[in-house]
Amino acid sequence: MDDRDATEEAIMEATYRALSTHGYGDLTIQNIADEFDRSKSLLYYHYEGKDELLAAFLGYALDRFIADLDIQDEDPGEQLALLVDRLLPETIEDERYNAQVALMELRSHAPHVETFSTQFSALDEQFSEMVVTIIQDGVDSGQFQPVDPQQEADLLVSVLSGMRTRRFTTEGYSVETAKVHLEELLQDRLGGDLKLT
Amino acid sequence: MDDRDATEEAIMEATYRALSTHGYGDLTIQNIADEFDRSKSLLYYHYEGKDELLAAFLGYALDRFIADLDIQDEDPGEQLALLVDRLLPETIEDERYNAQVALMELRSHAPHVETFSTQFSALDEQFSEMVVTIIQDGVDSGQFQPVDPQQEADLLVSVLSGMRTRRFTTEGYSVETAKVHLEELLQDRLGGDLKLT
Repeated sequence: MDDRDATEEAIMEATYRALSTHGYGDLTIQNIADEFDRSKSLLYYHYEGKDELLAAFLGYALDRFIADLDIQDEDPGEQLALLVDRLLPETIEDERYNAQVALMELRSHAPHVETFSTQFSALDEQFSEMVVTIIQDGVDSGQFQPVDPQQEADLLVSVLSGMRTRRFTTEGYSVETAKVHLEELLQDRLGGDLKLT
Repeated sequence: MDDRDATEEAIMEATYRALSTHGYGDLTIQNIADEFDRSKSLLYYHYEGKDELLAAFLGYALDRFIADLDIQDEDPGEQLALLVDRLLPETIEDERYNAQVALMELRSHAPHVETFSTQFSALDEQFSEMVVTIIQDGVDSGQFQPVDPQQEADLLVSVLSGMRTRRFTTEGYSVETAKVHLEELLQDRLGGDLKLT
Protein backbone atom coordinates (compact mmCIF):
# COMPACT_ATOMS: atom_id res chain seq x y z
CA MET A 1 0.00 0.00 0.00
CA ASP A 2 1.58 3.32 -1.03
CA ASP A 3 1.15 6.64 0.85
CA ARG A 4 -1.82 7.79 -1.15
CA ASP A 5 -3.67 4.54 -0.46
CA ALA A 6 -2.75 4.68 3.21
CA THR A 7 -4.13 8.22 3.49
CA GLU A 8 -7.32 7.28 1.70
CA GLU A 9 -7.73 4.22 3.88
CA ALA A 10 -7.31 6.39 6.99
CA ILE A 11 -9.90 8.87 5.67
CA MET A 12 -12.34 6.05 4.96
CA GLU A 13 -11.86 4.62 8.46
CA ALA A 14 -12.46 8.09 9.92
CA THR A 15 -15.60 8.44 7.80
CA TYR A 16 -16.89 5.10 9.07
CA ARG A 17 -16.35 6.14 12.69
CA ALA A 18 -17.92 9.56 12.12
CA LEU A 19 -20.97 8.03 10.40
CA SER A 20 -21.37 5.53 13.24
CA THR A 21 -21.19 8.32 15.81
CA HIS A 22 -23.18 11.10 14.13
CA GLY A 23 -25.36 9.39 11.51
CA TYR A 24 -25.78 10.89 8.07
CA GLY A 25 -28.04 13.77 9.11
CA ASP A 26 -25.58 15.38 11.50
CA LEU A 27 -22.39 14.46 9.68
CA THR A 28 -19.97 17.26 8.83
CA ILE A 29 -16.48 17.29 7.38
CA GLN A 30 -15.40 18.50 10.82
CA ASN A 31 -16.84 15.30 12.43
CA ILE A 32 -14.78 13.26 9.99
CA ALA A 33 -11.69 15.40 10.62
CA ASP A 34 -12.16 14.83 14.36
CA GLU A 35 -11.84 11.07 13.76
CA PHE A 36 -8.80 11.58 11.51
CA ASP A 37 -5.37 11.95 13.08
CA ARG A 38 -3.99 14.14 10.32
CA SER A 39 -4.98 17.61 9.12
CA LYS A 40 -8.41 18.54 7.87
CA SER A 41 -6.81 20.11 4.78
CA LEU A 42 -5.77 16.60 3.69
CA LEU A 43 -9.49 15.70 3.55
CA TYR A 44 -10.16 18.63 1.24
CA TYR A 45 -7.08 17.80 -0.80
CA HIS A 46 -8.50 14.35 -1.49
CA TYR A 47 -12.24 15.13 -1.69
CA GLU A 48 -14.12 18.24 -2.79
CA GLY A 49 -16.84 17.99 -0.17
CA LYS A 50 -18.96 15.80 2.07
CA ASP A 51 -21.03 14.15 -0.64
CA GLU A 52 -17.97 13.36 -2.78
CA LEU A 53 -16.24 11.87 0.25
CA LEU A 54 -19.35 9.82 1.10
CA ALA A 55 -19.63 8.56 -2.48
CA ALA A 56 -16.01 7.35 -2.22
CA PHE A 57 -16.90 5.80 1.15
CA LEU A 58 -19.73 3.80 -0.45
CA GLY A 59 -17.28 2.29 -2.94
CA TYR A 60 -14.88 1.55 -0.10
CA ALA A 61 -17.64 -0.02 2.04
CA LEU A 62 -18.67 -2.34 -0.78
CA ASP A 63 -15.08 -3.43 -1.43
CA ARG A 64 -14.59 -4.06 2.29
CA PHE A 65 -17.87 -5.96 2.52
CA ILE A 66 -16.83 -8.27 -0.33
CA ALA A 67 -13.24 -8.63 0.90
CA ASP A 68 -14.37 -9.43 4.46
CA LEU A 69 -16.96 -11.95 3.33
CA ASP A 70 -14.28 -14.55 2.61
CA ILE A 71 -16.61 -17.21 1.21
CA GLN A 72 -14.33 -18.51 -1.56
CA ASP A 73 -13.73 -21.95 -0.12
CA GLU A 74 -17.32 -22.75 0.83
CA ASP A 75 -19.93 -24.61 -1.18
CA PRO A 76 -22.74 -22.48 -2.71
CA GLY A 77 -25.28 -23.25 0.04
CA GLU A 78 -22.78 -22.28 2.72
CA GLN A 79 -21.83 -19.14 0.74
CA LEU A 80 -25.47 -18.02 0.72
CA ALA A 81 -25.79 -18.73 4.43
CA LEU A 82 -22.70 -16.60 5.18
CA LEU A 83 -24.00 -13.81 2.98
CA VAL A 84 -27.40 -13.81 4.72
CA ASP A 85 -25.72 -13.93 8.12
CA ARG A 86 -23.56 -10.94 7.21
CA LEU A 87 -26.51 -8.86 5.99
CA LEU A 88 -28.99 -10.01 8.60
CA PRO A 89 -27.10 -10.95 11.76
CA GLU A 90 -29.28 -11.74 14.75
CA THR A 91 -27.32 -9.33 16.92
CA ILE A 92 -25.21 -6.33 15.88
CA GLU A 93 -22.78 -4.41 18.06
CA ASP A 94 -23.55 -0.69 18.34
CA GLU A 95 -20.90 0.73 16.04
CA ARG A 96 -21.87 -1.59 13.20
CA TYR A 97 -25.58 -1.04 13.84
CA ASN A 98 -25.09 2.72 13.58
CA ALA A 99 -22.99 2.40 10.44
CA GLN A 100 -25.67 0.24 8.78
CA VAL A 101 -28.34 2.77 9.72
CA ALA A 102 -26.16 5.54 8.26
CA LEU A 103 -25.81 3.56 5.02
CA MET A 104 -29.62 3.21 4.89
CA GLU A 105 -29.92 6.99 5.31
CA LEU A 106 -27.35 7.57 2.59
CA ARG A 107 -29.33 5.25 0.32
CA SER A 108 -32.57 7.10 0.98
CA HIS A 109 -30.88 10.28 -0.29
CA ALA A 110 -29.80 8.63 -3.54
CA PRO A 111 -32.78 10.12 -5.45
CA HIS A 112 -31.39 13.59 -4.63
CA VAL A 113 -27.64 13.00 -4.96
CA GLU A 114 -26.52 11.57 -8.29
CA THR A 115 -23.15 10.31 -7.04
CA PHE A 116 -24.96 8.28 -4.32
CA SER A 117 -27.36 6.85 -6.87
CA THR A 118 -24.42 5.86 -9.09
CA GLN A 119 -22.63 4.22 -6.15
CA PHE A 120 -25.69 2.33 -4.91
CA SER A 121 -26.40 1.14 -8.46
CA ALA A 122 -22.85 -0.22 -8.71
CA LEU A 123 -23.15 -1.69 -5.21
CA ASP A 124 -26.44 -3.46 -5.96
CA GLU A 125 -25.17 -4.68 -9.31
CA GLN A 126 -21.94 -6.08 -7.90
CA PHE A 127 -23.80 -7.68 -5.00
CA SER A 128 -26.47 -9.13 -7.31
CA GLU A 129 -23.79 -10.54 -9.62
CA MET A 130 -22.15 -12.22 -6.64
CA VAL A 131 -25.48 -13.85 -5.71
CA VAL A 132 -26.10 -14.87 -9.35
CA THR A 133 -22.67 -16.53 -9.47
CA ILE A 134 -23.25 -18.41 -6.23
CA ILE A 135 -26.64 -19.67 -7.41
CA GLN A 136 -25.27 -20.59 -10.85
CA ASP A 137 -22.44 -22.53 -9.17
CA GLY A 138 -25.01 -24.34 -7.01
CA VAL A 139 -27.09 -25.25 -10.05
CA ASP A 140 -24.00 -26.41 -11.97
CA SER A 141 -22.79 -28.59 -9.11
CA GLY A 142 -26.26 -30.05 -8.55
CA GLN A 143 -26.56 -28.67 -5.00
CA PHE A 144 -29.43 -26.40 -6.11
CA GLN A 145 -32.41 -27.13 -8.32
CA PRO A 146 -32.24 -25.93 -11.95
CA VAL A 147 -33.48 -22.36 -11.43
CA ASP A 148 -32.98 -19.03 -13.21
CA PRO A 149 -30.11 -17.50 -11.17
CA GLN A 150 -31.04 -13.92 -12.22
CA GLN A 151 -34.59 -14.33 -10.97
CA GLU A 152 -33.61 -15.99 -7.68
CA ALA A 153 -30.92 -13.36 -7.09
CA ASP A 154 -33.36 -10.48 -7.73
CA LEU A 155 -35.83 -11.98 -5.25
CA LEU A 156 -33.20 -12.75 -2.61
CA VAL A 157 -31.53 -9.33 -2.83
CA SER A 158 -34.93 -7.64 -2.52
CA VAL A 159 -36.16 -9.74 0.38
CA LEU A 160 -32.87 -9.13 2.25
CA SER A 161 -33.11 -5.39 1.57
CA GLY A 162 -36.70 -5.32 2.84
CA MET A 163 -35.92 -7.33 5.97
CA ARG A 164 -32.99 -5.02 6.77
CA THR A 165 -35.14 -1.92 6.33
CA ARG A 166 -37.89 -3.33 8.55
CA ARG A 167 -35.36 -4.32 11.18
CA PHE A 168 -33.88 -0.83 11.38
CA THR A 169 -37.10 1.20 11.09
CA THR A 170 -39.72 -0.65 13.13
CA GLU A 171 -40.00 -1.83 16.71
CA GLY A 172 -40.34 -5.50 17.41
CA TYR A 173 -39.44 -6.86 13.97
CA SER A 174 -38.02 -10.32 14.68
CA VAL A 175 -34.90 -11.07 12.66
CA GLU A 176 -34.92 -14.60 14.08
CA THR A 177 -38.41 -15.25 12.66
CA ALA A 178 -37.50 -13.56 9.38
CA LYS A 179 -34.53 -15.90 9.01
CA VAL A 180 -36.70 -18.96 9.66
CA HIS A 181 -39.03 -17.73 6.88
CA LEU A 182 -36.10 -17.00 4.57
CA GLU A 183 -34.53 -20.40 5.17
CA GLU A 184 -37.77 -22.14 4.22
CA LEU A 185 -38.06 -19.91 1.15
CA LEU A 186 -34.52 -20.74 0.00
CA GLN A 187 -35.09 -24.45 0.65
CA ASP A 188 -38.27 -24.25 -1.45
CA ARG A 189 -36.66 -22.26 -4.27
CA LEU A 190 -33.14 -23.69 -4.40
CA GLY A 191 -32.91 -26.98 -2.62
CA GLY A 192 -34.04 -28.82 0.46
CA ASP A 193 -30.78 -29.03 2.38
CA LEU A 194 -29.97 -25.30 2.50
CA LYS A 195 -29.46 -24.17 6.09
CA LEU A 196 -29.12 -20.58 7.28
CA THR A 197 -28.26 -21.25 10.89
CA MET B 1 -66.46 15.96 8.73
CA ASP B 2 -66.36 18.66 11.44
CA ASP B 3 -64.17 21.78 11.32
CA ARG B 4 -61.31 20.28 13.22
CA ASP B 5 -61.18 17.32 10.84
CA ALA B 6 -61.41 19.61 7.83
CA THR B 7 -58.48 21.68 9.12
CA GLU B 8 -56.38 18.61 9.81
CA GLU B 9 -57.23 17.21 6.39
CA ALA B 10 -56.12 20.49 4.79
CA ILE B 11 -52.88 20.45 6.78
CA MET B 12 -52.19 16.87 5.73
CA GLU B 13 -52.84 17.72 2.07
CA ALA B 14 -50.46 20.68 2.37
CA THR B 15 -47.85 18.42 3.97
CA TYR B 16 -48.17 15.94 1.11
CA ARG B 17 -47.65 18.68 -1.47
CA ALA B 18 -44.73 20.21 0.46
CA LEU B 19 -43.04 16.79 0.82
CA SER B 20 -43.52 16.12 -2.90
CA THR B 21 -42.01 19.49 -3.77
CA HIS B 22 -39.15 19.77 -1.25
CA GLY B 23 -38.44 16.22 -0.10
CA TYR B 24 -37.80 15.49 3.56
CA GLY B 25 -34.32 17.01 3.72
CA ASP B 26 -35.36 20.52 2.75
CA LEU B 27 -38.82 20.50 4.32
CA THR B 28 -39.68 23.31 6.72
CA ILE B 29 -42.89 24.31 8.45
CA GLN B 30 -42.79 27.37 6.17
CA ASN B 31 -42.87 25.11 3.07
CA ILE B 32 -45.96 23.42 4.47
CA ALA B 33 -47.54 26.77 5.36
CA ASP B 34 -46.90 27.91 1.78
CA GLU B 35 -49.06 25.02 0.55
CA PHE B 36 -51.75 25.76 3.14
CA ASP B 37 -54.34 28.43 2.39
CA ARG B 38 -54.85 29.39 6.04
CA SER B 39 -52.51 30.92 8.59
CA LYS B 40 -49.24 29.35 9.68
CA SER B 41 -50.30 29.80 13.32
CA LEU B 42 -53.01 27.18 12.72
CA LEU B 43 -50.24 24.69 11.94
CA TYR B 44 -48.54 25.41 15.26
CA TYR B 45 -51.89 25.30 17.05
CA HIS B 46 -52.39 21.74 15.81
CA TYR B 47 -48.81 20.45 15.86
CA GLU B 48 -45.83 21.30 18.04
CA GLY B 49 -43.24 21.05 15.31
CA LYS B 50 -42.17 19.51 12.04
CA ASP B 51 -41.52 16.00 13.33
CA GLU B 52 -44.83 15.86 15.21
CA LEU B 53 -46.63 17.03 12.09
CA LEU B 54 -44.80 14.44 9.97
CA ALA B 55 -45.65 11.67 12.43
CA ALA B 56 -49.33 12.64 12.10
CA PHE B 57 -48.85 12.68 8.33
CA LEU B 58 -47.57 9.10 8.39
CA GLY B 59 -50.76 7.96 10.15
CA TYR B 60 -52.82 9.92 7.64
CA ALA B 61 -50.89 8.47 4.66
CA LEU B 62 -51.49 4.93 5.90
CA ASP B 63 -55.22 5.54 6.39
CA ARG B 64 -55.45 7.08 2.92
CA PHE B 65 -53.50 4.22 1.38
CA ILE B 66 -55.88 1.66 2.88
CA ALA B 67 -59.03 3.70 2.11
CA ASP B 68 -57.95 4.28 -1.51
CA LEU B 69 -57.07 0.65 -2.06
CA ASP B 70 -60.73 -0.34 -2.35
CA ILE B 71 -60.17 -4.07 -2.71
CA GLN B 72 -63.14 -5.27 -0.63
CA ASP B 73 -65.13 -6.84 -3.45
CA GLU B 74 -62.26 -8.69 -5.11
CA ASP B 75 -61.15 -12.28 -4.60
CA PRO B 76 -57.89 -12.77 -2.63
CA GLY B 77 -55.72 -13.24 -5.74
CA GLU B 78 -57.05 -10.05 -7.27
CA GLN B 79 -56.62 -8.24 -3.91
CA LEU B 80 -52.92 -9.17 -3.84
CA ALA B 81 -52.52 -8.07 -7.46
CA LEU B 82 -54.08 -4.67 -6.68
CA LEU B 83 -51.89 -4.29 -3.60
CA VAL B 84 -48.72 -5.08 -5.56
CA ASP B 85 -49.78 -2.75 -8.35
CA ARG B 86 -50.31 0.05 -5.85
CA LEU B 87 -46.94 -0.42 -4.18
CA LEU B 88 -44.98 -1.20 -7.32
CA PRO B 89 -46.67 0.54 -10.26
CA GLU B 90 -44.76 0.32 -13.53
CA THR B 91 -45.03 4.09 -14.00
CA ILE B 92 -45.54 6.80 -11.38
CA GLU B 93 -46.43 10.43 -12.04
CA ASP B 94 -43.94 12.93 -10.59
CA GLU B 95 -45.88 14.14 -7.55
CA ARG B 96 -46.51 10.61 -6.32
CA TYR B 97 -42.95 9.55 -7.11
CA ASN B 98 -41.59 12.42 -5.04
CA ALA B 99 -43.99 11.68 -2.18
CA GLN B 100 -42.92 8.01 -2.12
CA VAL B 101 -39.27 9.04 -2.09
CA ALA B 102 -40.02 11.43 0.80
CA LEU B 103 -41.69 8.58 2.71
CA MET B 104 -38.59 6.45 2.16
CA GLU B 105 -36.45 9.28 3.55
CA LEU B 106 -38.76 9.64 6.55
CA ARG B 107 -38.47 5.90 7.14
CA SER B 108 -34.67 6.04 7.02
CA HIS B 109 -34.79 8.57 9.87
CA ALA B 110 -36.93 6.31 12.04
CA PRO B 111 -33.88 5.08 14.02
CA HIS B 112 -33.32 8.69 15.16
CA VAL B 113 -36.92 9.90 15.66
CA GLU B 114 -39.01 7.79 18.01
CA THR B 115 -42.38 9.08 16.75
CA PHE B 116 -41.41 8.01 13.20
CA SER B 117 -40.36 4.60 14.40
CA THR B 118 -43.68 4.22 16.23
CA GLN B 119 -45.64 5.27 13.14
CA PHE B 120 -43.71 3.00 10.77
CA SER B 121 -44.15 0.10 13.19
CA ALA B 122 -47.91 0.69 13.18
CA LEU B 123 -47.90 1.13 9.42
CA ASP B 124 -45.99 -2.10 8.80
CA GLU B 125 -48.11 -3.98 11.30
CA GLN B 126 -51.41 -2.82 9.81
CA PHE B 127 -50.17 -3.49 6.29
CA SER B 128 -48.85 -6.93 7.26
CA GLU B 129 -52.16 -7.80 8.92
CA MET B 130 -54.00 -6.83 5.76
CA VAL B 131 -51.76 -9.17 3.73
CA VAL B 132 -52.19 -11.95 6.32
CA THR B 133 -56.00 -11.59 6.09
CA ILE B 134 -55.96 -11.71 2.29
CA ILE B 135 -53.77 -14.82 2.27
CA GLN B 136 -55.86 -16.48 5.00
CA ASP B 137 -59.03 -15.77 2.98
CA GLY B 138 -57.41 -17.28 -0.10
CA VAL B 139 -56.42 -20.39 1.83
CA ASP B 140 -59.91 -20.69 3.36
CA SER B 141 -61.61 -20.34 -0.02
CA GLY B 142 -59.24 -22.81 -1.65
CA GLN B 143 -57.86 -20.25 -4.12
CA PHE B 144 -54.44 -20.49 -2.45
CA GLN B 145 -52.49 -23.54 -1.28
CA PRO B 146 -52.54 -24.30 2.45
CA VAL B 147 -49.68 -22.00 3.56
CA ASP B 148 -48.73 -20.17 6.76
CA PRO B 149 -50.21 -16.70 6.11
CA GLN B 150 -47.83 -15.01 8.59
CA GLN B 151 -44.79 -16.42 6.85
CA GLU B 152 -45.99 -15.60 3.34
CA ALA B 153 -46.99 -12.09 4.45
CA ASP B 154 -43.58 -11.45 6.05
CA LEU B 155 -41.82 -12.54 2.85
CA LEU B 156 -44.14 -10.59 0.54
CA VAL B 157 -43.97 -7.38 2.60
CA SER B 158 -40.16 -7.63 2.68
CA VAL B 159 -39.73 -8.36 -1.01
CA LEU B 160 -42.05 -5.45 -1.91
CA SER B 161 -40.14 -3.15 0.43
CA GLY B 162 -36.82 -4.19 -1.10
CA MET B 163 -38.03 -3.81 -4.68
CA ARG B 164 -39.37 -0.32 -3.88
CA THR B 165 -36.07 0.71 -2.31
CA ARG B 166 -34.07 -0.59 -5.26
CA ARG B 167 -36.39 1.16 -7.70
CA PHE B 168 -35.97 4.52 -6.00
CA THR B 169 -32.26 4.34 -5.18
CA THR B 170 -30.59 2.70 -8.19
CA GLU B 171 -30.44 3.42 -11.90
CA GLY B 172 -31.83 0.89 -14.33
CA TYR B 173 -33.72 -1.33 -11.86
CA SER B 174 -36.50 -2.86 -13.96
CA VAL B 175 -39.84 -2.88 -12.15
CA GLU B 176 -41.34 -4.81 -15.06
CA THR B 177 -38.82 -7.63 -14.61
CA ALA B 178 -39.21 -7.51 -10.81
CA LYS B 179 -42.97 -8.00 -11.22
CA VAL B 180 -42.47 -10.98 -13.53
CA HIS B 181 -40.23 -12.51 -10.85
CA LEU B 182 -42.71 -11.67 -8.11
CA GLU B 183 -45.63 -13.14 -10.05
CA GLU B 184 -43.79 -16.43 -10.50
CA LEU B 185 -42.86 -16.38 -6.80
CA LEU B 186 -46.48 -15.86 -5.73
CA GLN B 187 -47.69 -18.55 -8.13
CA ASP B 188 -45.11 -20.93 -6.65
CA ARG B 189 -45.91 -20.04 -3.03
CA LEU B 190 -49.68 -19.46 -3.12
CA GLY B 191 -51.23 -20.94 -6.23
CA GLY B 192 -50.69 -21.35 -9.94
CA ASP B 193 -53.40 -19.02 -11.27
CA LEU B 194 -52.30 -15.83 -9.48
CA LYS B 195 -51.72 -13.04 -11.99
CA LEU B 196 -50.13 -9.65 -11.25
CA THR B 197 -50.73 -8.02 -14.61
